[in-house]
Amino acid sequence: MSVGADRFLKDLHQLRTFGATGTGIVRRAFSDMDIAARLWLAAEMQEAGLTPQFDPVGNLFGLHPAEKSLLIGSHSDTQPEGGWLDGALGVLMGLAIARASVQAGGPPVSVVSFQDEEGRFGGLTGSRVWAGDISLSEVDDLCDFDGISFADARSKMKELAGDFVNPAQFTGYIEPHIEQGPVLDTSGEKVGVVTEIVGTRELLVTLKGQQNHAGTTPMPMRRDAFQALAEFSHELNGRFQNVVASQTVWTIGHVEVHPNAASIVPGQVRFSAQWRDGDAGRLACMEDIVRETLADVCATHGIGARLSESQQILPVKMDTGLREKLEIAAEQSVPGSWRKMPSGALHDASYVARLMPTAMMFVPSIGGISHSFEEDTAEDDLVIGLNVLARAAFG
Amino acid sequence: MSVGADRFLKDLHQLRTFGATGTGIVRRAFSDMDIAARLWLAAEMQEAGLTPQFDPVGNLFGLHPAEKSLLIGSHSDTQPEGGWLDGALGVLMGLAIARASVQAGGPPVSVVSFQDEEGRFGGLTGSRVWAGDISLSEVDDLCDFDGISFADARSKMKELAGDFVNPAQFTGYIEPHIEQGPVLDTSGEKVGVVTEIVGTRELLVTLKGQQNHAGTTPMPMRRDAFQALAEFSHELNGRFQNVVASQTVWTIGHVEVHPNAASIVPGQVRFSAQWRDGDAGRLACMEDIVRETLADVCATHGIGARLSESQQILPVKMDTGLREKLEIAAEQSVPGSWRKMPSGALHDASYVARLMPTAMMFVPSIGGISHSFEEDTAEDDLVIGLNVLARAAFG
Repeated sequence: MSVGADRFLKDLHQLRTFGATGTGIVRRAFSDMDIAARLWLAAEMQEAGLTPQFDPVGNLFGLHPAEKSLLIGSHSDTQPEGGWLDGALGVLMGLAIARASVQAGGPPVSVVSFQDEEGRFGGLTGSRVWAGDISLSEVDDLCDFDGISFADARSKMKELAGDFVNPAQFTGYIEPHIEQGPVLDTSGEKVGVVTEIVGTRELLVTLKGQQNHAGTTPMPMRRDAFQALAEFSHELNGRFQNVVASQTVWTIGHVEVHPNAASIVPGQVRFSAQWRDGDAGRLACMEDIVRETLADVCATHGIGARLSESQQILPVKMDTGLREKLEIAAEQSVPGSWRKMPSGALHDASYVARLMPTAMMFVPSIGGISHSFEEDTAEDDLVIGLNVLARAAFG
Repeated sequence: MSVGADRFLKDLHQLRTFGATGTGIVRRAFSDMDIAARLWLAAEMQEAGLTPQFDPVGNLFGLHPAEKSLLIGSHSDTQPEGGWLDGALGVLMGLAIARASVQAGGPPVSVVSFQDEEGRFGGLTGSRVWAGDISLSEVDDLCDFDGISFADARSKMKELAGDFVNPAQFTGYIEPHIEQGPVLDTSGEKVGVVTEIVGTRELLVTLKGQQNHAGTTPMPMRRDAFQALAEFSHELNGRFQNVVASQTVWTIGHVEVHPNAASIVPGQVRFSAQWRDGDAGRLACMEDIVRETLADVCATHGIGARLSESQQILPVKMDTGLREKLEIAAEQSVPGSWRKMPSGALHDASYVARLMPTAMMFVPSIGGISHSFEEDTAEDDLVIGLNVLARAAFG
């Protein structure tokens, strides 16, 4: 079955014009550009023989007339300074395959563009509401950084809004996406079949030592909060070696030193410790190690520690049936040049997996760059991805 | 010879009223409170039989009529939030001993309160000009954080200003001071005789890695600038062990992480590395180790480093003749309950040592606290310090 690669690329470049800024895109959820792009998408869906339907939170579905269909898509909103493929790729791969499925009378495929995946109101807002993780009245109270409520934002689309789409009509959901990491680009492989979306745990830690004069306080009498942080980081790296897998990641990304002056022994440090893995048990085990290591280092350095409750996002396993279809299609299309891999980033698939069998497929990101105007993927690789996905949907 | 401990304590509490704020003092150089305190000091000097003389930069001398005298003093300006003894103690110990020397016809002693020791215009400004380290025209261009020039500040005292005092009239300088550290308070000793004022070296370092998504970037592909800093700190502590002495100190006091978000691998870190010791050779050797360790850690972590030129303050040895007088006096007054020790903080003595034999004596700081409203010393310990100094001056 032909999926029209030229039309797919033309559509991608057409969608790119909405909010184009240099090589990147500014198309925040519910902005004029976002709504204009969704109206263009709805027209494209109509023209492809699908029934466009907006729901109350701005999610746009293009529904195949069949009673049951496979749903393919992602999102068309962007980061404040976003790339042209993040989200858009999945929506337009879905549209290309749904168009082909209508034209050929093949296995029915519907398409979706979720709203506010990029988190103007906290992240994955559209799919989160659809999956029932948060109610419409709760989400309406969320505000963006300018103090605008979700209720006010979605009221801009109230003329368009229909009912929520019944998820029971879909046999499953596949979300194609750029990898947003360097693994495929580095290995030269063309496709990643996602095994799971990793879970995340995060702690915010405050270390309290004793602020002191950096000239007059002998080393053995210091309770230096920054030294405690540096030793914690070093010690943690060692202790993690016994439990981590190759895909496990951990990050100290936020650090505040007080009073932060060259001639003063730091009296306080606040920092974030975050770790991600596909295995819930490993995430819990790592939290034990983080807490033990902190306790040991603080005891050695005479430091008090205050830890937040850990923020937890559970890992989401991808559906084995859909994964197998993607794996077979990848091996047929690009034999030996694809891999199974976790998704280190969150996606709408995390919530949709609560409703139906769900899978994801990655194409390479040049240099691993994303959430940036420089985000890009070779057009040949986009077409390879489209063909793998079509094989999986129709095969 | 009696040095009038009651009068000395009364004077300390009287000076404390200028700028009193809770238990602390706000008496910034050239502020109305600072000038009022200096006028009060000048009147006290006059009454003690000394000749008060302001110089062009606000230093106030109380000159003994003898052709040659020993100079004792410190400063009477304070930090923005200062303690009641930092500086004031040395000036009023000097005044008490000078008064006694006039009354008894004993060995002549003069007294000084230097201006801007606490650095409204950079630090040690008054003694620095007097010692010829910076010219009057250069110092006039220095500005405080509000943009007020030294020239404008000192013009508030122009009616008072006389000539610079000729340093050749002094046989030496002794600066009594609170320790500003925890050594004497912890050991229970009463007096510290300073061996040297330590030197300082400081580097500002920028580490450049690669900013990345904390979920999608595998650990082996990261170039995490914060991890490089933490490993540098750990490694440096180990390598320093072979060269440092018990009094050597080193501090990473300022740290800026970019972009400083929990979910982003840090792409850049800026930090200060500072170390202090009384031995110039050791300071240089430590700089070699800092630079080697940074180079090694950066190579391992794929990080680029940009280092400032090191800022250097050379160590200043105290005069052995004056030290010996203080040591003998301490052993007579509080046998076995004093120690020789370096000064980890800078003092006016650092610059005065360029002009004449110079020494320093410390009394305990409760809890090692200074540059704080909580700074304090037991009155018994103040009087012990006064008696040791009087013995050294007259003995």
